[in-house]
Amino acid sequence: MTATVLSGKELSKTLSDELSVKVAAFKDEFGYAPTIAVVRAGEDPASASYARAIEKAAAGRGMAYQLHTLPENASQSEIVALVRELNADHSIHGIMVQEPLPKGIDEAAVKDALSPDKDVDGVHPVNAGRLTQVAPAGRPPMVGPFFVPATPAGGLEILKRNHVEIKGKHAVVVGRSNIVGKPMAMLLLRESATVTICHSQTSDLAAVCRTGDILCAAVGRAQMIRGDWIKPGAVVIDFGVNFVDGQMCGDVAFAETVEVASMITPVPGGTGPMTNVMLLSNVVEAAKNQAT
Amino acid sequence: MTATVLSGKELSKTLSDELSVKVAAFKDEFGYAPTIAVVRAGEDPASASYARAIEKAAAGRGMAYQLHTLPENASQSEIVALVRELNADHSIHGIMVQEPLPKGIDEAAVKDALSPDKDVDGVHPVNAGRLTQVAPAGRPPMVGPFFVPATPAGGLEILKRNHVEIKGKHAVVVGRSNIVGKPMAMLLLRESATVTICHSQTSDLAAVCRTGDILCAAVGRAQMIRGDWIKPGAVVIDFGVNFVDGQMCGDVAFAETVEVASMITPVPGGTGPMTNVMLLSNVVEAAKNQAT
Repeated sequence: MTATVLSGKELSKTLSDELSVKVAAFKDEFGYAPTIAVVRAGEDPASASYARAIEKAAAGRGMAYQLHTLPENASQSEIVALVRELNADHSIHGIMVQEPLPKGIDEAAVKDALSPDKDVDGVHPVNAGRLTQVAPAGRPPMVGPFFVPATPAGGLEILKRNHVEIKGKHAVVVGRSNIVGKPMAMLLLRESATVTICHSQTSDLAAVCRTGDILCAAVGRAQMIRGDWIKPGAVVIDFGVNFVDGQMCGDVAFAETVEVASMITPVPGGTGPMTNVMLLSNVVEAAKNQAT
Repeated sequence: MTATVLSGKELSKTLSDELSVKVAAFKDEFGYAPTIAVVRAGEDPASASYARAIEKAAAGRGMAYQLHTLPENASQSEIVALVRELNADHSIHGIMVQEPLPKGIDEAAVKDALSPDKDVDGVHPVNAGRLTQVAPAGRPPMVGPFFVPATPAGGLEILKRNHVEIKGKHAVVVGRSNIVGKPMAMLLLRESATVTICHSQTSDLAAVCRTGDILCAAVGRAQMIRGDWIKPGAVVIDFGVNFVDGQMCGDVAFAETVEVASMITPVPGGTGPMTNVMLLSNVVEAAKNQAT
């Protein structure tokens, strides 16, 4: 059996087209564009490049974008002051603070300073808490609107748009970061999967992975998850972004896994291209919440 | 093999004695007692009885207690106004809003109104989010102080005080409530267990339970978890409080399980007696945070 390769690149185009329609409708109704402000500090080239990618994606959807770059030696209080200023600015609907921040900056304190209503990357504890506390899908909502981090939201969207059954399935999430692993686990739990969260301390990780009907990898180690760790017929979502000899690859050994799984996201072209469109979707939701 | 029965009743006495010492030290230093305000509405007899138990436990530790009872027909805005008044009252250090609130009251909105700094039962989304986002135990803290719901905090304390190894073990949590199942899963993840969260949609729950080195039951169904669902030598924490023919029993079939597990909490006398002392410990922490 050879797995179906789930293209996030193709899906992201569909979602981008859908988003453009929503943005146009928003502008018709309210007379202004949903606007994202990106905050970054220092010279990190990956962060600068990511900011440009968001700018390009926003422009492509008809959305407005602002970049606020602080110097490498910006102080904690300068960064927090900028975030507070953006919180109070009614022309900004979503704020994303890019990591890494310069050394010595308390990233948690910066996240805490974000208005949860503008925290379109879902990093504020209120948004993380609402995702943890939300009722299972299909049951009455028990919490208000909230934002989910874009990367795991993109992974879930790939599953849903490819009609992968989640309810009652065993989902194994490898990695427990606040930006991918834990929110992905909470999203899958909300969809009523039985969810196992694994990490560096997990005993016999291969055996645990083999119990997963859905396997999500977010560890940041190139091709760590081997083909014989995969339950035959499993659906594999690879969040890894690693480089080996200048070539991008995921956390899953693709060539081996594609022979065992029923579906798999490639790297590149899988979860990666989904992130920006999910982030920008959150900005449109934020703009709607703030307009009404 | 017969399991060691882990008495929460005995352990709660030890913790209460330790707490009394902390309260006395606090009063010596600051000249006033850590104070909890309990908010309840209506005539629910279980809720009234629970409030009296907290009062008695607080008095026994030298702590101050206030009861605010609203009528059964109290409105949403009256309850929220009371919570806000208590938030602003510097003589109150912890607030617990007892459920159930009267029909038609939006419990989530009431929780949202709580000051996270006084939310000693850990129900505000900020506290749920900090518990989700906190770094694994032993790694640098990435989030500020926060409060964990008392019942799962008591379950973890039973494990720790009985020297149960958690790191690298497979913990299975049955139940995904916001007050027990999900926070217990997050606590075990923080201690670096591999954590599986099960619920009503889990396929072959018995088989999943049998993979647990640590099995936590929080489903609210009398003796649902049978002896042959238990991995031999597992440690079983039973959060269930059910009544069969007027007799209190847990979610785990105790007589069968005690022959298979290595350790088990009884019901009554297990996790139940731990809850109030964990809640009051949070009140003392809150009072300290607010004093400094």
